[in-house]
Amino acid sequence: MIIDCHGHYTTAPKGLQAFRDSQLAGLKDPKHVPSKGTLKITDDEIRESLENAQLKFQRERGTDLTIFSPRASGMAHHIGDATTSLHCSQHCNDLIHRVCSLYPENFVAVCQLPQSPGVPPSNCIQELERCVNELGFIGCNLNPDPSGGHWTAPPLTDKYWYPFYEKMVELDVPAMVHVSASCNPNFHTTGSHYINADTTAFMQFLTADLFKDFPTLRFIIPHGGGGVPYHWGRYRGLAQDMNRPLLVDLIRNNVFFDTCVYHLPGIELLLKIVPMDNILFGSEMVGAVRGIDPETGFYFDDTKRYIDSVTWLSGGDRKKLFEGNARRVYPRLKL
Amino acid sequence: MIIDCHGHYTTAPKGLQAFRDSQLAGLKDPKHVPSKGTLKITDDEIRESLENAQLKFQRERGTDLTIFSPRASGMAHHIGDATTSLHCSQHCNDLIHRVCSLYPENFVAVCQLPQSPGVPPSNCIQELERCVNELGFIGCNLNPDPSGGHWTAPPLTDKYWYPFYEKMVELDVPAMVHVSASCNPNFHTTGSHYINADTTAFMQFLTADLFKDFPTLRFIIPHGGGGVPYHWGRYRGLAQDMNRPLLVDLIRNNVFFDTCVYHLPGIELLLKIVPMDNILFGSEMVGAVRGIDPETGFYFDDTKRYIDSVTWLSGGDRKKLFEGNARRVYPRLKL
Repeated sequence: MIIDCHGHYTTAPKGLQAFRDSQLAGLKDPKHVPSKGTLKITDDEIRESLENAQLKFQRERGTDLTIFSPRASGMAHHIGDATTSLHCSQHCNDLIHRVCSLYPENFVAVCQLPQSPGVPPSNCIQELERCVNELGFIGCNLNPDPSGGHWTAPPLTDKYWYPFYEKMVELDVPAMVHVSASCNPNFHTTGSHYINADTTAFMQFLTADLFKDFPTLRFIIPHGGGGVPYHWGRYRGLAQDMNRPLLVDLIRNNVFFDTCVYHLPGIELLLKIVPMDNILFGSEMVGAVRGIDPETGFYFDDTKRYIDSVTWLSGGDRKKLFEGNARRVYPRLKL
Repeated sequence: MIIDCHGHYTTAPKGLQAFRDSQLAGLKDPKHVPSKGTLKITDDEIRESLENAQLKFQRERGTDLTIFSPRASGMAHHIGDATTSLHCSQHCNDLIHRVCSLYPENFVAVCQLPQSPGVPPSNCIQELERCVNELGFIGCNLNPDPSGGHWTAPPLTDKYWYPFYEKMVELDVPAMVHVSASCNPNFHTTGSHYINADTTAFMQFLTADLFKDFPTLRFIIPHGGGGVPYHWGRYRGLAQDMNRPLLVDLIRNNVFFDTCVYHLPGIELLLKIVPMDNILFGSEMVGAVRGIDPETGFYFDDTKRYIDSVTWLSGGDRKKLFEGNARRVYPRLKL
């Protein structure tokens, strides 16, 4: 089985945007009383939104199962308050649950969290429990910067996050470290904010003893680990200068990179540098880059093709990359 | 000649820190009247600070000339106000000038700018002119985030920066895009803030028409271009999705990466992916990573060794990397 650990519902029917527009309009009206509102989307609309996108690409590219979550840039935790974020998250997560119920062999669910700037992440525990215990979700996306590019929250290694981590450990679910849209004009959402957040999170993990406190806590750093594999020597050197553990020991059971790197030389570097036990196949499809690479004639985000063309990978390595590691990181995945 | 485009005076005599300590103490005293103060450093102290560090490494590694600037993390533009920053910059730049006067065959000078959060960069024109016209400097380090990790300035492509760019163009000097110390606990200075800033700047350049307005403006993005070469496919794809020019056309005469990447696979990726005309040899020596790589027995930041071991580089490519491109980007370099 080939498991894609990184897919978002970027093609959701327009009813989702209608809900969000109505919610945002309410925020601008001082007399508006926040309410959860309703999402008007039919099962047929869901089917249609997937058949010509994620499902088509699964068939064409030969992947089987996508670990699927709400659109990352749509989380926009910086908008409104914790109630805004809760209502939006519940709708988005319910929608993902419907996708996974309609296509139980193609999608398995990961949830968005109702984070909000300045609100301790313990406020997300209830929604995580609902998604995992009631709806069968197997993980969550955790935003290290709910402010959307202003980076006002404490680092992921701060005790601020610990109550939420305790729940993750109890439920045995991992988190993908995933920021959302940037509202800071310095950062392009998918071009720099995403990649920066990946690099930032890794360095936070490198400089603290989080995994001594939580030996079974697991994070996936998406987008191939941001800038980290390219600068692996820098990070090995910094760790050594600071008397920190070897990187391979530091990440062994706790930090994993996906393969959302959109050209062969980048994928080759990733597979050469990062231990094979710490890489999960992912494509971010349908995601940040939608086009076809004129140099290859194939979609930029068809990352399976790059991996398939790395001839020195053993069969055992491929098995880990495409399935085994995902099953280890997401033990609630039972398919 | 082998020109290292990226060296900082990280080993400055303790008199520099004494000046800075006194300046910072003054900031805490409400009765203190800011004054430029003095820097008590002898020529012998300067010689000693370099002989067992940068000069030793130049000899050992076989490099000839370092394009040399004040310690980047020491700029700390977020501390104090524009006057604080001006006094500090003037001392740091004068010190670099003394280094270059003592060792005119080993060092050529690049200046720190008196940036300050919320202060338009036009306030740096005078110090740039002083350094270039009076002291023979050949470039500057431009900090895209004087707030030190809060990213409160407009993007580098905003007209906010244009008056300073006009002066850079007039003087025909390039800028290395280089942030300073992070005062945001999310960002480790050399581990994530530096790399993030590189990635951020590139994406800003990709999404705007800055180089249509300034066809001869030149930036060096240090640390191997941050996360960019590793994600080159992502950036090619994003540019295509946004109907932007091809990356190679976008950067051709305006954006250059150095080779501060501290392992061979990273250097190989850089040299394979980025056009050879847009790469300048650099080591950041003595800089972010001070140690010896136990896997090779050589210093992590001895980047010349990595390049030397890339067998497929032609003689012409090596000449560009080590000398030709630097002379093109820094036309005031006359040695």
